[in-house]
Amino acid sequence: MRVNPGLEGVIVADTEISYIDGQSGILIYRGYEAKQLALHRSYEEVVYLLWKGRFPDSAELDAFNQALWENQRLTEELKQIIKLIPPDVDMMSVIRAALSSLGDRSFGWPPSLEKAVSLLAITPAIIAARYRHLQGKPIVEPIPNLSFAANYLLMIHGKKPHPAHIRALESYFTLAAEHGLNASTFTARVVASTEADLSSAIIAALGALKGPLHGGAPSEVEGMLEQIGSLEEAEKWMRERLRQGEKLMGFGHRIYKTTDPRAEALRQVVQTGSGAEPWFQFAVEVEKIALALLKEVKPHRQIHTNVEYYTAAILKAIQLPKLLYTPTFAVTRIAGWIAHILEQAKNNRIIRPTSNYIGSMD
Amino acid sequence: MRVNPGLEGVIVADTEISYIDGQSGILIYRGYEAKQLALHRSYEEVVYLLWKGRFPDSAELDAFNQALWENQRLTEELKQIIKLIPPDVDMMSVIRAALSSLGDRSFGWPPSLEKAVSLLAITPAIIAARYRHLQGKPIVEPIPNLSFAANYLLMIHGKKPHPAHIRALESYFTLAAEHGLNASTFTARVVASTEADLSSAIIAALGALKGPLHGGAPSEVEGMLEQIGSLEEAEKWMRERLRQGEKLMGFGHRIYKTTDPRAEALRQVVQTGSGAEPWFQFAVEVEKIALALLKEVKPHRQIHTNVEYYTAAILKAIQLPKLLYTPTFAVTRIAGWIAHILEQAKNNRIIRPTSNYIGSMD
Repeated sequence: MRVNPGLEGVIVADTEISYIDGQSGILIYRGYEAKQLALHRSYEEVVYLLWKGRFPDSAELDAFNQALWENQRLTEELKQIIKLIPPDVDMMSVIRAALSSLGDRSFGWPPSLEKAVSLLAITPAIIAARYRHLQGKPIVEPIPNLSFAANYLLMIHGKKPHPAHIRALESYFTLAAEHGLNASTFTARVVASTEADLSSAIIAALGALKGPLHGGAPSEVEGMLEQIGSLEEAEKWMRERLRQGEKLMGFGHRIYKTTDPRAEALRQVVQTGSGAEPWFQFAVEVEKIALALLKEVKPHRQIHTNVEYYTAAILKAIQLPKLLYTPTFAVTRIAGWIAHILEQAKNNRIIRPTSNYIGSMD
Repeated sequence: MRVNPGLEGVIVADTEISYIDGQSGILIYRGYEAKQLALHRSYEEVVYLLWKGRFPDSAELDAFNQALWENQRLTEELKQIIKLIPPDVDMMSVIRAALSSLGDRSFGWPPSLEKAVSLLAITPAIIAARYRHLQGKPIVEPIPNLSFAANYLLMIHGKKPHPAHIRALESYFTLAAEHGLNASTFTARVVASTEADLSSAIIAALGALKGPLHGGAPSEVEGMLEQIGSLEEAEKWMRERLRQGEKLMGFGHRIYKTTDPRAEALRQVVQTGSGAEPWFQFAVEVEKIALALLKEVKPHRQIHTNVEYYTAAILKAIQLPKLLYTPTFAVTRIAGWIAHILEQAKNNRIIRPTSNYIGSMD
């Protein structure tokens, strides 16, 4: 019997949510290029599009923004739980504990948009509250009429964020919201396929996202940029690294064989904001040197900038501590998971592959 | 492109853990018939077997029992968290919140037996503490040198359980610990395949187990037995139900086309203990009437007793409230999930099927 341990090439779902063309460097959300969405639409519009398959009209967008803000306030019990969890427990576990402690209330099956909004909205509030608590600082409440990304920065740092930072984070949120059937999105669909509630599927997916094999590593890129230190040192540092047979972090991708479209969009956002943010300028210049060097040293390989490179530049610029990198990825990927769970629910079948017994017999 | 939305017939793993032959009514754990294990081995020995592939020697078994007991004590923070969660939040969410609040500490990848023991041990303690709190009663600590099943009953009811009840619960635990690649076990393997920690995989699986499509429904069997009320009424009640085109709960199974071997084993345990427990005697007699009736009314179909039937009889006899039925299933199925996670880790490959885009293009 043929065993396919990674399920490579097995198609488990028809989807209308996203399309990835790694050869051409194209990422589509619901018929639209994610790159264009990141440059020309708000994050809230993109989430609405992912969930409902169309853009909101202006009344719908207002209602959506309002609902997001309303669902960011934490109950007193939830604040206490967030504080009671021992300080050495990792942030992803804290998010799971907090979301679990809310249960699924009256929401069950099929998953509702109401519950979806509440899960998306409360997650950044949980992260920010926990982070502030670890810092010994008071919890900061979100402000109405501020965007989702802006409120996230406000709740973390306790002060109104810079517009260039908000714009950069929003673009990152849009570009990281959805990326087909990766392991966490698949986990969400498997759990949803049992008709479990939305929370159960999201909490399960958070577990998969924690896995080192799952996702990118923007914190490794940041480490590299920090070690490079200055533009004058950049070429020498990277050349030495390549000479030692090591990789440059933030370059090359399993799926994209040309420039990662998410990196392209983020570069454009970063360039636009680089007047206000020296770190952005630095990242753009280092990328140029790195690409020239890769072309020189590995002329037969096409190695392009990936999304982690500019993600790192942005997360560093907005002064996000490294312990919040994966949780911040989760903040936006929840939107993609929800889109998939809603789609799974529309035409559900329990996902149940089989195994092949090769053990002993009595 | 062929889409297989349920992954039916797709083999995702070679396994040495369990084998199900539905035609012959056989369930094998690591080469041994589960039925024989339930009748002749302690639950702790069976868990050890599932995890390590062999029985423990007596020193190993003592150490295992000791470790289980040591890991059942809750910290003060954990007790407070369990009490802070609003009373309307379901027990499965409470388990997830509590396990999440422990994080994965120094345990990461690969999963360790030490962490496995701590997760298996603490789950019943969490459930019992929450249940006692909801009842307004003090939390009861486990006692050393009492079995895992006995301590579970002790922590719930606050008094030493009857030996017939302990034996019945132990048998149920053994027979419900493992059943191949169902949706929750598959979820655990998908999450583990990202190299996420053991907690993340277990918490994800708990979400799948919550889904109504996942598992059996012993509480519906209990409802039926309660409605039947007395042996004199049994035949009339069930005949009327069948006349209305409804099913008898606890009979028939998707996989087993003959008697569910788990039901056979539990019947034997229940018959042995029926002198001490009138509810056991009642269940055995009602089963006889039901099987005769099914043979008469549906002579061309082979409908047999399934595991939920005797599970209900046992859970009712040990006075477990219905809100603890699925959580109690989780208490033992965690052992099976862990066996699969350990196996996944031995030869891991990230599980990542694909999807087929059928949406619009810009």
